[in-house]
Amino acid sequence: MEIFEATEDNYGGVTVNMKKEEPMDSHKFHTMLMASISNWRQKGKKGIWIKLPIELAHLVEAAVKEGFWYHHAEATYLMLVYWIPETPHTLPANASHRVGIGALVLNNNGEVLVVKEKSGKSTGIWKLPTGVVEEGEDICMAAIREVQEETGIETDFIEILAFRQSHKSFFGKSDLFFICMLKPLNFTIHKQNAEIEEAQWMAIEEYSAQPKLNKSELSKNIAKICLAKKDNEYTGFSAVLTTTGLSAKNCYLYSNK
Amino acid sequence: MEIFEATEDNYGGVTVNMKKEEPMDSHKFHTMLMASISNWRQKGKKGIWIKLPIELAHLVEAAVKEGFWYHHAEATYLMLVYWIPETPHTLPANASHRVGIGALVLNNNGEVLVVKEKSGKSTGIWKLPTGVVEEGEDICMAAIREVQEETGIETDFIEILAFRQSHKSFFGKSDLFFICMLKPLNFTIHKQNAEIEEAQWMAIEEYSAQPKLNKSELSKNIAKICLAKKDNEYTGFSAVLTTTGLSAKNCYLYSNK
Repeated sequence: MEIFEATEDNYGGVTVNMKKEEPMDSHKFHTMLMASISNWRQKGKKGIWIKLPIELAHLVEAAVKEGFWYHHAEATYLMLVYWIPETPHTLPANASHRVGIGALVLNNNGEVLVVKEKSGKSTGIWKLPTGVVEEGEDICMAAIREVQEETGIETDFIEILAFRQSHKSFFGKSDLFFICMLKPLNFTIHKQNAEIEEAQWMAIEEYSAQPKLNKSELSKNIAKICLAKKDNEYTGFSAVLTTTGLSAKNCYLYSNK
Repeated sequence: MEIFEATEDNYGGVTVNMKKEEPMDSHKFHTMLMASISNWRQKGKKGIWIKLPIELAHLVEAAVKEGFWYHHAEATYLMLVYWIPETPHTLPANASHRVGIGALVLNNNGEVLVVKEKSGKSTGIWKLPTGVVEEGEDICMAAIREVQEETGIETDFIEILAFRQSHKSFFGKSDLFFICMLKPLNFTIHKQNAEIEEAQWMAIEEYSAQPKLNKSELSKNIAKICLAKKDNEYTGFSAVLTTTGLSAKNCYLYSNK
């Protein structure tokens, strides 16, 4: 009986990478899947992963019928998983958090770079430039990118002043939001038109005194930290590029230097 | 022509929540989907979301044929999405990060709580208790939970000493790892048997001098921070419970007090 080719991992699991270039009807897929599971069971395998390209969406049903469930999905594929042992599974969790940044950019006159957004919950408030950290992007780099995109101001990353974690923010996922301090390298604003209504330099005291801003305890707390930072009375976490593990993979460590 | 019931969002999108209690054959689903998209297009709708319970896996293929792609998936459902306008989509990204913690638990003798794991990359090294922050769980609470589960030691959360971000850690996702300082409330270790080989209190100098640990630049840096903390020469980020937005949702802000 034909079975699937699979790569083994260090946790007693196997992964089948289905290829969109090798289409298969669902009957053949189902037959091979049953034979494969029987084989993996004999070998004492535990977690069974199937990465199914979206082009093979017609095979999802057959896998689910065999007891597979969804682990995660990206635009181009669905990852299905199955647990052979009778014991509760110890499979790793899916990504649980989205990560965002807010940027405190202070010039030498004690003014902060602020924007008004065209849509969303914060229209009418002067706020720090914000954005989403992309998969694979460093927090410090995301802050520099967002400020440049929204206002045309180039910056150097200085430190992370604070962060907040909140829950059930989107599709039940949790959310981490890092306030980053950046140093501007130029001062003439060229705002982005798609999302930004207005952008300007504003006295930080004026920014932090906005009544609408102060309706949120969190925003009030963050504004206080920004004021303390302006007066050099606050130390955040600096970024140090280091390496991790025996493979010496690059990563940033953020800490109080 | 029958069309799907859908809820509208603030961004010009609509969401169809398919019900597992209301099964439908794929032909009917496809017909209704085409009629619905035509209706939403006339109304100027942009993003179209379909939440499909795993029990309706037989409908995935029809949605993909109509141009839908995968946004994300959890164990029990698949979220499909489609963008009607001709312009590039502005749909929100999927969760991009997994979040973990490592716990520095120091007793009054300058000893640190360390464990040896039964499997994984770090066997043979005395390491800080670590674990994954669950969706919806606060980082400070996750640290307390993991220490209790692995060693039986109850703790109070003190502060976050540092964190690192790395990429391509699992299924291409990024990873945030927070080093948390905790204060032990009891001292007799009851180790968990499933994952933990050994657990003990160890002089922090002995912990940080382990040759295997020092092969990783990151671990070396973290051990330095732990040593500085033991000597009261380091300040991390404390947790303050606050509220965000007009809905006054609870959240933790981590900052230098």
